[in-house]
Amino acid sequence: MKVQDFKWKKDIKVKEMLDSFRSLGYQSVELAKASEIIVKMKKDSSKIFLTFTSNMVTSGLRGFFAQIIKLHLADVIVTTVGGIEEDIMKARGESFSIGKFDADDIELHEKGINRVGNIYVNNESYMNFEDYINQVLQQLYEIRPRWSVSEMLKEIGMLLKDENSILYQAASNNVPIFCPAITDGAFGFHLYLFQQKHNDFMIDVVQDFGNILFTTSQDDKKGIIALGGSISKHHAILCTLLNGGADYAVYITTAHQTSGSMSGATTKEAKSWGKIKDDSDAVTVIGDATMLFPLAMTKALEQLNDEGLL
Amino acid sequence: MKVQDFKWKKDIKVKEMLDSFRSLGYQSVELAKASEIIVKMKKDSSKIFLTFTSNMVTSGLRGFFAQIIKLHLADVIVTTVGGIEEDIMKARGESFSIGKFDADDIELHEKGINRVGNIYVNNESYMNFEDYINQVLQQLYEIRPRWSVSEMLKEIGMLLKDENSILYQAASNNVPIFCPAITDGAFGFHLYLFQQKHNDFMIDVVQDFGNILFTTSQDDKKGIIALGGSISKHHAILCTLLNGGADYAVYITTAHQTSGSMSGATTKEAKSWGKIKDDSDAVTVIGDATMLFPLAMTKALEQLNDEGLL
Amino acid sequence: MKVQDFKWKKDIKVKEMLDSFRSLGYQSVELAKASEIIVKMKKDSSKIFLTFTSNMVTSGLRGFFAQIIKLHLADVIVTTVGGIEEDIMKARGESFSIGKFDADDIELHEKGINRVGNIYVNNESYMNFEDYINQVLQQLYEIRPRWSVSEMLKEIGMLLKDENSILYQAASNNVPIFCPAITDGAFGFHLYLFQQKHNDFMIDVVQDFGNILFTTSQDDKKGIIALGGSISKHHAILCTLLNGGADYAVYITTAHQTSGSMSGATTKEAKSWGKIKDDSDAVTVIGDATMLFPLAMTKALEQLNDEGLL
Amino acid sequence: MKVQDFKWKKDIKVKEMLDSFRSLGYQSVELAKASEIIVKMKKDSSKIFLTFTSNMVTSGLRGFFAQIIKLHLADVIVTTVGGIEEDIMKARGESFSIGKFDADDIELHEKGINRVGNIYVNNESYMNFEDYINQVLQQLYEIRPRWSVSEMLKEIGMLLKDENSILYQAASNNVPIFCPAITDGAFGFHLYLFQQKHNDFMIDVVQDFGNILFTTSQDDKKGIIALGGSISKHHAILCTLLNGGADYAVYITTAHQTSGSMSGATTKEAKSWGKIKDDSDAVTVIGDATMLFPLAMTKALEQLNDEGLL
Repeated sequence: MKVQDFKWKKDIKVKEMLDSFRSLGYQSVELAKASEIIVKMKKDSSKIFLTFTSNMVTSGLRGFFAQIIKLHLADVIVTTVGGIEEDIMKARGESFSIGKFDADDIELHEKGINRVGNIYVNNESYMNFEDYINQVLQQLYEIRPRWSVSEMLKEIGMLLKDENSILYQAASNNVPIFCPAITDGAFGFHLYLFQQKHNDFMIDVVQDFGNILFTTSQDDKKGIIALGGSISKHHAILCTLLNGGADYAVYITTAHQTSGSMSGATTKEAKSWGKIKDDSDAVTVIGDATMLFPLAMTKALEQLNDEGLL
Repeated sequence: MKVQDFKWKKDIKVKEMLDSFRSLGYQSVELAKASEIIVKMKKDSSKIFLTFTSNMVTSGLRGFFAQIIKLHLADVIVTTVGGIEEDIMKARGESFSIGKFDADDIELHEKGINRVGNIYVNNESYMNFEDYINQVLQQLYEIRPRWSVSEMLKEIGMLLKDENSILYQAASNNVPIFCPAITDGAFGFHLYLFQQKHNDFMIDVVQDFGNILFTTSQDDKKGIIALGGSISKHHAILCTLLNGGADYAVYITTAHQTSGSMSGATTKEAKSWGKIKDDSDAVTVIGDATMLFPLAMTKALEQLNDEGLL
Repeated sequence: MKVQDFKWKKDIKVKEMLDSFRSLGYQSVELAKASEIIVKMKKDSSKIFLTFTSNMVTSGLRGFFAQIIKLHLADVIVTTVGGIEEDIMKARGESFSIGKFDADDIELHEKGINRVGNIYVNNESYMNFEDYINQVLQQLYEIRPRWSVSEMLKEIGMLLKDENSILYQAASNNVPIFCPAITDGAFGFHLYLFQQKHNDFMIDVVQDFGNILFTTSQDDKKGIIALGGSISKHHAILCTLLNGGADYAVYITTAHQTSGSMSGATTKEAKSWGKIKDDSDAVTVIGDATMLFPLAMTKALEQLNDEGLL
Repeated sequence: MKVQDFKWKKDIKVKEMLDSFRSLGYQSVELAKASEIIVKMKKDSSKIFLTFTSNMVTSGLRGFFAQIIKLHLADVIVTTVGGIEEDIMKARGESFSIGKFDADDIELHEKGINRVGNIYVNNESYMNFEDYINQVLQQLYEIRPRWSVSEMLKEIGMLLKDENSILYQAASNNVPIFCPAITDGAFGFHLYLFQQKHNDFMIDVVQDFGNILFTTSQDDKKGIIALGGSISKHHAILCTLLNGGADYAVYITTAHQTSGSMSGATTKEAKSWGKIKDDSDAVTVIGDATMLFPLAMTKALEQLNDEGLL
């Protein structure tokens, strides 16, 4: 394909801009390809793993993830516990605010404001979360003492009743949410305090390994959309590895492969492991998912919608 | 401002997405701010410096830069010589193609294909450029033997007659193009060979320093849009420094400040030098300009157009 | 301090080079500062959290981590399960090899070679790990059916008897190893299969939250050395947050703060949360830990040794 | 080669650590390879191009570059004008100081301090430079009115008489310094003001293209050590391209290839152009040159010295 000059025209739509990106160069080309692969994975009836890190739930991508689940573009979710906590906070009415990367952090600390890049979260939101989660854990415990993480998150999702909640939409649409490090956050602290009072209360992470393994089979077509790195990304590709490899993969990350990190590991490297099939359609896009994911996904949604597939 | 959930709606326009970015988080917020600052610099009748590196002219941003000049959103251009060469090639009918980052470079070399990231440029394009530029240098020399770079580029621009050409639009709209390292490319080699035949042929880079200096004054409001790093960026901010500092600045770059490089130098650092005024509106956005610049600029163009200012 | 010219002299020692780095500029300055903060945290009798990602255990840093534990420079370890698996593999005689970043991944896949950046791991090493770990799980189960992760890792460490093993040195020196996502790897798969045969076999991650919490108290001086990002880093700073904040912190990472990720989160951001105290000594160094950590730590070890504190 | 555990031993030398890096993993392996390639290029009697950006001259690498020239490890220098200016300033007794990346830039501006990452340069140093350079330009003009850049820099180098000066050592050892954008700095402003008074004063950049071209021939073995990106790097590889390609190449940079920039362009990409020969020994190391270059070069110097080749 020839490089083609992008030209602005009035009222240009996102889908039109993404069409231009196909012949623009560098990461714009990779982003347009990401969009195409998402369309293909859906058309091929793949089971789609969507993974993201908790800072993306802190951001305004949270409601978009919920919408994607509702639109059946995600069959399995993997994330970290911060994302779970913040989805619950937001579903309960907490709001975060846009701040500055170069804030005075000591001043913020004095004001009880916690910074995640250029987003601020108040201590109060964590305190309200504590009150709520303790009450929920009590309810769960009354049902039974031993829970796998995904079962627990489904129960919580049912309670939230917020259209923009990831947990609510996942529970409503039978999309399991996996969180392999459920204790790595405030949630972990509250689980611990609860277990101190109820020694038979158990979170069974081992059982959840089976749960994620059986979300798909060797025979299923499998797709991965991995935003950022971390165990969210790794857990999904470990699962596809055990089921014969993914057929489609889109990675969007700011990290590079040069330090051998999981965040920077490319779709190409994943082929050596069999995490992604040798003949798969796969792309790695370098950039911030808060900009790139809405762009690529919007284009995919428009195309699927235009073809009556949404 | 509160973080707000992005939600896809059918046929969403770029300007609507950029509106969402204001409350989304991380770099999306900075990108939306970039767009707002571009609008402000135009409304404030600033002289606008637009700087870019040659790889962006290799990409499909080239025609967009030409359009921006035509729409009077750039008053001074600074770039590197590769960008000049490739704009001329494209104006003369050469085309580049989209390839792969992980191409077999030895195979490409055997085929006479030169790679710039995921864009391919044929040797043939360079050979055709050679034929043309030699003929142009002869024409220029017949006018006079001593040329400043910007004067020479204006003459060449006049000859090109391609709506999508940066040089043509700049020449047609009285927008000077500065290129502080005019010899750092194939162009330099041809200038050298020409000078061997005509010893009095001189490119006067020193005179061009005065030329860029007098594009603006202390009294002018000044804005900078710097895409990527390099001497393009540095030359523009050196000039604003000497004229009292820029009032508005947008940097879009993939580089970070942590190694002290010009590519990664932030708008904040620029304030210590007086390159940008202390009370300026300024933002640094991290990411690939082939995606981010069309987004931010489109939003600015739409808004200016909606307000009858384009 | 003035910038001072570095000059090579024959047989220069690492500690001398790091002394030069203090006045060299950019990241060299930050690296020298990292070294000084490590010395301070030790002199101040801090409890030191050392966190790293599994790719660092894949690399030759693994034996260095073991040595650091033996030298009492780490009191608490947090890592991801891949690091646990590979430490065990290496302790059992498996070896990895140096390869290429731009390898042919499909060819590697056919040969049963898995790539982590420029390091290769054979499938065979995973198969041998499977045999061993199944036997170990049987032994553990015969002791009791319910294990917290850190207790299980201590038992395994005792069995390994390899001076260069992280698990062995940790077990021998009463240094607990925490791994908040124990199922996110081959280990998780084997735990799952074992639980299928023994339904009462439980890994209690919740209990381990208490275990890490009680490794330190509000009154202890606390230091963090976080290499790379991920839940390893987050889990340690979550723990220091709950105990009043760290007094000393060194982050070495290739990630930047601009996308709001945990990998890129700075020591400065951590202060807003109280993860690190407002008046702490803290530094973030940008670069690959396989180069930077041996440099900074060697300088610290030499200085402590010279002062008779090792 | 197998991955081998690094172990600290007392008084470890830099060369021993670099030996360990060969089998450590990720960028440490690439850095060790860089060192080996530098040794090879010297042993093979290559003409060595050393390129660096001006921020490295701001740092304490400046005296090290001078030492390398003196030790005959660099035959051609390419840099940007900021580096020229600052080498002259330092040779004239100015000193820069180590500051902070997150300084208050408005406060610095008020104090007349200019920030380059975490290095501070006083306005006063620029004023003293102005006084000196005007006097030097007068001297040069009295000799003749037309100067190529490299000839002018040689004359200036002769005047400086500072062992630690790049310009002085280059002049003393017949190593030409090329600077393709000589006007892109304070120097450019002073050249301009001087030309205003002496209209026949000319800087001939075109002639210098020939000068760099004839530093080497098709028959010479050629090596490149490129630190950072910019026109410094590009100018050297353009020159090797025109002379048949480099036989050895070491790039050290913080930039990645993913945006198609020159800073991030790899040695692999350079092969498609013929800038580097297909069968060359070449490596790209990712990281900050203020740490990585002293390490790799020290190891190379030690080895050459041990073999009596220095």
